[in-house]
Amino acid sequence: MTIEIAPTNEQAFQQFKPLIEKYNAEKVEQMKSYDPEFYVKCISTIPSDAELDSQSIDPRQYLGQLLDASELKIVNDYTINDLLSKQLDGSLTAVEIANAFIKSAIIAQLTTNCIMQFLIPNALDKAAKLDVYLKENGKLVGPMHGIPISLKEHLSFKGEITHASYVSLLSSVTPKHALTVDIFDKQGALYHVRTAQPQTIMHLDTWNIITGRTRNPRSTKLSPGGSSGGESAAIGMHGSVIGIGTDIGGSIRCPAAFAGICGMRPTVKRVSLLDVTPSSGGQESIVPTIGPLARSIEELDYFMKHYINDGKPWESDTTSIPIPWREAELPQKIKVGVLYTDNLVTPYPAIVRGMKTAAEQLAKHSDTFEIVDLAPYWFSEQEMLDIYTTNLVLYTIDGNKGQLSLTEKSGEPILPLTEHYFKFGGGKPLSAFENRQHNHVRDVNQQRIFEEFFKKTSSSLGLDFILSPTNVSPAEIPAESFYWGYTSFWNLFDYPNVIFPSGVSHDVELDSHVDEGSLLSNEYEKKVWYNTNGSLRYDASQFINAPVGLQLTGKRYDDENVVAAVKKITKALGVGRQ
Amino acid sequence: MTIEIAPTNEQAFQQFKPLIEKYNAEKVEQMKSYDPEFYVKCISTIPSDAELDSQSIDPRQYLGQLLDASELKIVNDYTINDLLSKQLDGSLTAVEIANAFIKSAIIAQLTTNCIMQFLIPNALDKAAKLDVYLKENGKLVGPMHGIPISLKEHLSFKGEITHASYVSLLSSVTPKHALTVDIFDKQGALYHVRTAQPQTIMHLDTWNIITGRTRNPRSTKLSPGGSSGGESAAIGMHGSVIGIGTDIGGSIRCPAAFAGICGMRPTVKRVSLLDVTPSSGGQESIVPTIGPLARSIEELDYFMKHYINDGKPWESDTTSIPIPWREAELPQKIKVGVLYTDNLVTPYPAIVRGMKTAAEQLAKHSDTFEIVDLAPYWFSEQEMLDIYTTNLVLYTIDGNKGQLSLTEKSGEPILPLTEHYFKFGGGKPLSAFENRQHNHVRDVNQQRIFEEFFKKTSSSLGLDFILSPTNVSPAEIPAESFYWGYTSFWNLFDYPNVIFPSGVSHDVELDSHVDEGSLLSNEYEKKVWYNTNGSLRYDASQFINAPVGLQLTGKRYDDENVVAAVKKITKALGVGRQ
Repeated sequence: MTIEIAPTNEQAFQQFKPLIEKYNAEKVEQMKSYDPEFYVKCISTIPSDAELDSQSIDPRQYLGQLLDASELKIVNDYTINDLLSKQLDGSLTAVEIANAFIKSAIIAQLTTNCIMQFLIPNALDKAAKLDVYLKENGKLVGPMHGIPISLKEHLSFKGEITHASYVSLLSSVTPKHALTVDIFDKQGALYHVRTAQPQTIMHLDTWNIITGRTRNPRSTKLSPGGSSGGESAAIGMHGSVIGIGTDIGGSIRCPAAFAGICGMRPTVKRVSLLDVTPSSGGQESIVPTIGPLARSIEELDYFMKHYINDGKPWESDTTSIPIPWREAELPQKIKVGVLYTDNLVTPYPAIVRGMKTAAEQLAKHSDTFEIVDLAPYWFSEQEMLDIYTTNLVLYTIDGNKGQLSLTEKSGEPILPLTEHYFKFGGGKPLSAFENRQHNHVRDVNQQRIFEEFFKKTSSSLGLDFILSPTNVSPAEIPAESFYWGYTSFWNLFDYPNVIFPSGVSHDVELDSHVDEGSLLSNEYEKKVWYNTNGSLRYDASQFINAPVGLQLTGKRYDDENVVAAVKKITKALGVGRQ
Repeated sequence: MTIEIAPTNEQAFQQFKPLIEKYNAEKVEQMKSYDPEFYVKCISTIPSDAELDSQSIDPRQYLGQLLDASELKIVNDYTINDLLSKQLDGSLTAVEIANAFIKSAIIAQLTTNCIMQFLIPNALDKAAKLDVYLKENGKLVGPMHGIPISLKEHLSFKGEITHASYVSLLSSVTPKHALTVDIFDKQGALYHVRTAQPQTIMHLDTWNIITGRTRNPRSTKLSPGGSSGGESAAIGMHGSVIGIGTDIGGSIRCPAAFAGICGMRPTVKRVSLLDVTPSSGGQESIVPTIGPLARSIEELDYFMKHYINDGKPWESDTTSIPIPWREAELPQKIKVGVLYTDNLVTPYPAIVRGMKTAAEQLAKHSDTFEIVDLAPYWFSEQEMLDIYTTNLVLYTIDGNKGQLSLTEKSGEPILPLTEHYFKFGGGKPLSAFENRQHNHVRDVNQQRIFEEFFKKTSSSLGLDFILSPTNVSPAEIPAESFYWGYTSFWNLFDYPNVIFPSGVSHDVELDSHVDEGSLLSNEYEKKVWYNTNGSLRYDASQFINAPVGLQLTGKRYDDENVVAAVKKITKALGVGRQ
């Protein structure tokens, strides 16, 4: 998709354009020089950008057309445990794993444009060393020995440019790894790609001025979500085993749902954000988190367990909380509250159908699950309006000074969803006192959620988990992810979530009916459901192949149990590794 | 001491005066009606307020004069374990314990004016019930069965007025206990007194418009510190076994040091502040904490262990971090960095002598302690100025709107240390953006402290703990605690601390010499050392009997080890239960 937006400062932007061109040329050069023949074959097989952008193409088909059988086994079939055991028994080398995933990542890039930067020499060099180590020592260097992990680009990488999608940072080389990158580096991970994120990293879509738009790995005309949409496309395309994303409003969860994979937003400060670019700059009203995306819940569990228990981030980052990754302790009967709508914006039909299908299926396993419809208990529309206002105001309460100082330097064009974000909650700079008033609204409701839904007393529902939509829509139309509420609600209150595929995908016929009479009249509902001219925006024909991903939420710090519960739920739904 | 400050609104204040009188009259009435004869004996034995305020009287002498031998054993000699085992073996009842501590608390009040409100009927009623329970069940209700715990008044108490020293809140009855009060209530604690705190709870002294000034339990003309000075005086006078204080700038630690007892400021969010009055109001730049004061380190340990492991605050407060109180794990050789001065304000001679005495004594136990002088490694004067500026600005960055809205309602006079506090960092309301810039200064230095002093790598000192003064002065002259840096530094960066007696007290002769040439020229040094007319403010004759309490600081969340290390240190110093 082309972009027709003028730079905010034409003169400044012209000076940065060569940096953009150089950066992108290096990416093409890495793909070409890795295996010129393979690259030519890819180019001739994969449709043009124009076709990919305008059609509902499932790009996963090109893996089968471009990889050989052994490569396909590696990128499609082998779990982490398989990859480790096969290296240990000598039937697979880290170099073979690296090569297979470099190829699938190239296919991912050429179909979905999900890669910000390739690190092919880095991955091949590391893989060779790992093979030598294993041969000499007869053991793995650590739990991620030879496992390809993709990195959202703004996780700083030692000796490389880290620009966080800001054109003005295109010369900014970071001197060391982000701590989380360092932890898995020492555990043997292969870093072969850094993935795309949107301008300012604040869209629920992935589109930036340096590398353009990223496409959905199930339907190329759709959005892969954002801001970790480079990750969800890379994982969805089997270009990597695990991806590391970040989430301050839905940025791991929407991409995971839109790509039909799993993603986790842990409770804050369990995974370290030390040396992520840019730093938080002292923002703590809504604290960002970092977490994994993968094709199965088991891989998320593996990531969290080894990151926390072997990585011990608190030995390097004084803000990390020293809680080990504990054994899950689920009750014999799991009490799940089901939230079909948040009372502020009505989800699209496919989402409602996915929720109902899941709830009905779980209710059938009445020995394992107790299902409670939260409709009579949830916040009212007015309460949700107040909460969402606080939510949005807290994102932009500094008047976006941090982001603007970085976009203004290069004069880069401001994308529509960046403009949308800048205006959140009015977008005006407020006082420290007003900031605290909004924090107070947050704190009161954080405790209220606990007391009304989770606390184990007679006056509470005593839920173990809440099941809810991830987003109003299955994978969105590019640049049209307007409403953050289904995910940002949980950032505001910091309850941990796991996203998982429901097994349901959008169906043009089943999901065509809209009961306009039941829609609400608040501004957010209108923005999602209607065009500015008043016509219905929702068009079932747009969402072919878009998966419905659901969100399970637990008590704060109860991350282990959320993961364990999703294992049981996906089993009950019959949804396995994607 | 009388106060000659005009109300800010004479008319409003006149309307509140009857409430102050009624509140104080009820306190006297509780003391009188409890045991009229004992009260008369106290009044006739204890010197007048004027004498207490002007002389260096050690008020602990009146315990011996006013209590009988069995009462003295209870309030002076029995540890928590003794009190519990004697109840179990039938040699002591909870009612006897309650009566002894009610009497010592009355003596504490009449000498130091440390009690805000008596809860005598509450304690006696609870004690009687505990005795019945023990008799019927043959076991204790919990780990605090029959143990008197005093409560800083702003911890909300069910059905009682909780005013937090604001005159305007003198009719405000709180409907439920603060969670921390509730936790120990269920464990069997006896609540017999709520203790004094200063106006706005933001002095390192204890003086408010409702109950006046609290005196030091070692020297009545001096300050007991603040803001938990009612607690330190009550504990120092053996009026309670354990006290619960709060600390956002030194408010547990200065009082503990000034009273010659132990006090702990745990890492934030390990002890719950739920339903403390007033609420934080969304302030999170410097997060307040809550912690114990007691006459021995063993009692602090007991408090923390049973609060966390039995109380499980995270089951009620969603902001509480679910880390159990773990077994301490000290290295065989404990590496202690010693900070004699913070390079911003030079401590008074008694403090320097106390620090040196302790460091020399620990160095003699070279099998247990490795001592490192931090002088070559600590922040420079300019760095400390920048940090202290951020520290002060963050206290008042909302323009003190929260406090002013409460003082203005009643028109109560504003005390000198309240004025002093209101002007911290300029006292101007700043923007959310500026708040974040100061937060960023905090975050960068919080990590720097970890990496330079605590982290176990070759480029760090790899300390286990830092030993430093608690305050520039031993117990201060009333209304003259100006410099918060030795304690507030650790609030800003949230490293946990324990205060313990050094065994050294101020000595008029030994501590009379001042080397003025070595003093610094920054404004904070001047304010501490000089009067506004340029004459030396420090006068060794003022600090008779003032104890030197030292501060041990550990890594964040390493509270258990800080407590364990203080056990070893006090043993090495030969300092036992006070």
